[in-house]
Amino acid sequence: MNRLKKQMEFIVEIDKLKYIFRQSALISDGRKENSAEHSWHLGLMAMFLSEYIKDGSVDLLKVIKMVLIHDIVEIDAGDTFAYDEHGYEDKEEREIQAAQRIFNLLPSDQADEIWKLWREFEERRTPEARYAASLDRLQPLLLNYFTQGHTWRMPGVTSEKVYERMAPIRESTPVLWEYAVEIIEDSIAKGYLKR
Amino acid sequence: MNRLKKQMEFIVEIDKLKYIFRQSALISDGRKENSAEHSWHLGLMAMFLSEYIKDGSVDLLKVIKMVLIHDIVEIDAGDTFAYDEHGYEDKEEREIQAAQRIFNLLPSDQADEIWKLWREFEERRTPEARYAASLDRLQPLLLNYFTQGHTWRMPGVTSEKVYERMAPIRESTPVLWEYAVEIIEDSIAKGYLKR
Repeated sequence: MNRLKKQMEFIVEIDKLKYIFRQSALISDGRKENSAEHSWHLGLMAMFLSEYIKDGSVDLLKVIKMVLIHDIVEIDAGDTFAYDEHGYEDKEEREIQAAQRIFNLLPSDQADEIWKLWREFEERRTPEARYAASLDRLQPLLLNYFTQGHTWRMPGVTSEKVYERMAPIRESTPVLWEYAVEIIEDSIAKGYLKR
Repeated sequence: MNRLKKQMEFIVEIDKLKYIFRQSALISDGRKENSAEHSWHLGLMAMFLSEYIKDGSVDLLKVIKMVLIHDIVEIDAGDTFAYDEHGYEDKEEREIQAAQRIFNLLPSDQADEIWKLWREFEERRTPEARYAASLDRLQPLLLNYFTQGHTWRMPGVTSEKVYERMAPIRESTPVLWEYAVEIIEDSIAKGYLKR
């Protein structure tokens, strides 16, 4: 199959990320957010919050690529709810299989590029990956706060677990961490989140 | 209001782009596509199709920023269907007003940046803007082709109008134009699109 046909096959395949629904609800609508629009939102956040990165200047193009591709594996593996300990048991294995199938629709040089971006995001060792992870935590925090704790009402969610989940924000962007703490404390005070 | 609060206000506001529905339907689902997930799809296409740009190398970061922000004005101005001549009469005016309100939620330096990106996209004079426009035409063409001409069934849509609408693809990415012609001709042959 020629190169362009492979690229188009991938582009058509990823349309399916628009049907993968997360636990978060949209702010003024109530319907659940899908992983494609979530990824778009992270791309915008990456553009306008990069001044808060502790590590100094980062490769913003790489960050944006990372956030745009980070959830594509969910097309096969599904979205694993952040506070679902059982779902996390085989998350990595399911996602690696998904990455192998979906990324390999692309020509091999581009499959390599996206695979590396995704691994870098998952391993969270570079400043770019840490910033991307910080945004990936902050965005659902905002949605939860502005929907009176929509997903925080699910069984087993406590402020302790939310704080733990938000740790990547502290690592990468301390100013955004202060903001996150403010929101979490206000959510507890307002009864959106169990202490 | 401090800088971070302004940025957060903008980030929360743009959640609304997820409720702006386009005419295109998703490939395997049938529901209409929203402008946030459409913009995400363009970002991915920008990443993997840049080798076809006629103008040589472009600033890919700028292209991706452009496609991520290009539809934000629709939060106030709504989506104008590509083949709605009436809707196009006051499109520009409605969108400029929207840009002024929404972009100015950001701190002024960032409001300037996004305003410039949006104008550049709209004016379609730079290689980056032409590539972004090419993708913005090709993406709904793919959705239409793989949904048996979903929006092409609307009154007044003919292959001549579709070809006219697709002109930016020819200008920026001739190889993708050949692909687009193949799809359009096949759509006519299959009865998805009126000649």
